[in-house]
Amino acid sequence: MTIKAALLGFGTVGQGVYEILEEKQQDLQHLLGRPVEVVGILVNDMNKSRPVRTETLVTDRFEQILEQQPDVIFEATIGQEPGYSYIKQALNERIHVVTANKVMFAAHGEDILEVADFHDVGIGYEATTAAGTPIIGTLSHLLQINNITKVEAILNGTSNYILTAMQQDGKSFSEALQEAKDKGYAEADPANDIEGHDAFYKLMILSQLLHKKQPVWSDVPLKGISQISPEDLTEAAQKGERIRHVAALELINGELSAQVKPVALPASHGLHSIDGVDNAITVSGDLVGSVTLRGPGAGKRTTASAMVEDFVRILQSAPIYQLH
Amino acid sequence: MTIKAALLGFGTVGQGVYEILEEKQQDLQHLLGRPVEVVGILVNDMNKSRPVRTETLVTDRFEQILEQQPDVIFEATIGQEPGYSYIKQALNERIHVVTANKVMFAAHGEDILEVADFHDVGIGYEATTAAGTPIIGTLSHLLQINNITKVEAILNGTSNYILTAMQQDGKSFSEALQEAKDKGYAEADPANDIEGHDAFYKLMILSQLLHKKQPVWSDVPLKGISQISPEDLTEAAQKGERIRHVAALELINGELSAQVKPVALPASHGLHSIDGVDNAITVSGDLVGSVTLRGPGAGKRTTASAMVEDFVRILQSAPIYQLH
Repeated sequence: MTIKAALLGFGTVGQGVYEILEEKQQDLQHLLGRPVEVVGILVNDMNKSRPVRTETLVTDRFEQILEQQPDVIFEATIGQEPGYSYIKQALNERIHVVTANKVMFAAHGEDILEVADFHDVGIGYEATTAAGTPIIGTLSHLLQINNITKVEAILNGTSNYILTAMQQDGKSFSEALQEAKDKGYAEADPANDIEGHDAFYKLMILSQLLHKKQPVWSDVPLKGISQISPEDLTEAAQKGERIRHVAALELINGELSAQVKPVALPASHGLHSIDGVDNAITVSGDLVGSVTLRGPGAGKRTTASAMVEDFVRILQSAPIYQLH
Repeated sequence: MTIKAALLGFGTVGQGVYEILEEKQQDLQHLLGRPVEVVGILVNDMNKSRPVRTETLVTDRFEQILEQQPDVIFEATIGQEPGYSYIKQALNERIHVVTANKVMFAAHGEDILEVADFHDVGIGYEATTAAGTPIIGTLSHLLQINNITKVEAILNGTSNYILTAMQQDGKSFSEALQEAKDKGYAEADPANDIEGHDAFYKLMILSQLLHKKQPVWSDVPLKGISQISPEDLTEAAQKGERIRHVAALELINGELSAQVKPVALPASHGLHSIDGVDNAITVSGDLVGSVTLRGPGAGKRTTASAMVEDFVRILQSAPIYQLH
């Protein structure tokens, strides 16, 4: 009996998941005891040709995906809808869900986690935050008894890539942005990256995970990097500092304080040395102290890696009755 | 019904575990659904007075610990024996085990994991490597489908502390070592730290975890930092480099290659900026790319944190029948 997987969305990340499920057939069978088969792919445009097995259902109708009775759904669509509705429907049918959709999960994560919990179904969202860098797993599974009161993070790979290229190579903002686009790091709409919205959504997801609540969105000071000039960077460099786009969250006397903005960091700061497309998250736990995770913050394979890792972990702990 | 815990060894780490179990009673009950009680502590010297509840059994006889029928044993003794024998006996009686004993686990980890697996009992060893920094959990649970072929790491907090103090503050080797001792970072026998043995054991534990085997111990080039002079550090600094004590492991065509030695690292290297008592581990996965974990590499609370986190995770997934 195979494990049946379906993909919602077949952009960069969806294709990455498909490729990894194909490449890692043997390893997956070894880890999960059964082979994994992609039984359906939901797309927007039926007319595009796609590099998938001919027997795989490609459809633009979600009902057809559900008719395949998948055990797990990989959701890699853009925006709150229809991703949110699809996920809720899937969870209600006791299908495990792995998502990379940060905009949707920042807004509806609390509800989704409740629905998943109610049905005792797995939900993975590692890929929403810092791509493949396993920060969600670390906070969910590895640091449970630690009280994490403070997070400081570089959460947008594109912004960090641009700042690094401007500072190290003397590029202009627009040159550096174009380079980030060419390398496939920038999101579909680069405004999300460079105006700080992408980092903001990820910070809200971390807030929900750590504190079971989020600050009021409109209260969070939010500033991107589009106004940073080469002169700002030169000025910082003269003081031995580097400008980084920092998302910060702190719980002070039960109140959440969050901000997302460019900050000039001295060499002694742990995020000073984070270059290029990397993301890094520093969490301060009352027992463990200050722990930092660093890894690629954008890219097809690394984001898809997080989704397949979530899938493996969910299937390993899923009760047998949940498998169709 | 309480969860019954016993401690083997009541040095720095054992005391840290005891304190955390006391302080976090409420959180543990919330996470595990039942209160946790320390039912016994195994010590060497019965004549020392110890800050524990008067009703807690303190004994120098392991049989008395077993008579308490603990659900889990925290092993924080020094050296291969008697820790190894105690752990095997505990596992055979289906008691979960959490250990911080790196020397023992480097030598006998494979056997211990087999025995634990045979009895379907939990074994936690996060605290053996990089103190509280959750590298074992990340590799065991969060990066399972990634093929990790390369590890580069700073694994000895004392060595890194000494190198940092020599380089940044111009201290001599012996001054810096004394400072590390005063702060409680250095192991009971500092030779283990400064001659590289401690980092070597941790690297062997990572090798076992990643590749289910270890290189022949005597084949691994092993050099500590005791021969590093202030002149070496100055020379490196003039080239913009820093000397770090690096443990490296790579799988090349199925063959393991390992080495543990001081290396001069350029500013572009991810381990260049790791200062003080911190440890850091960079793993390269075929899907996720290069991921680095950084955190305190020594200290009572951070090491004990790793043990209690292991305990929580094991108890959460333990079948009911295993609980006495």
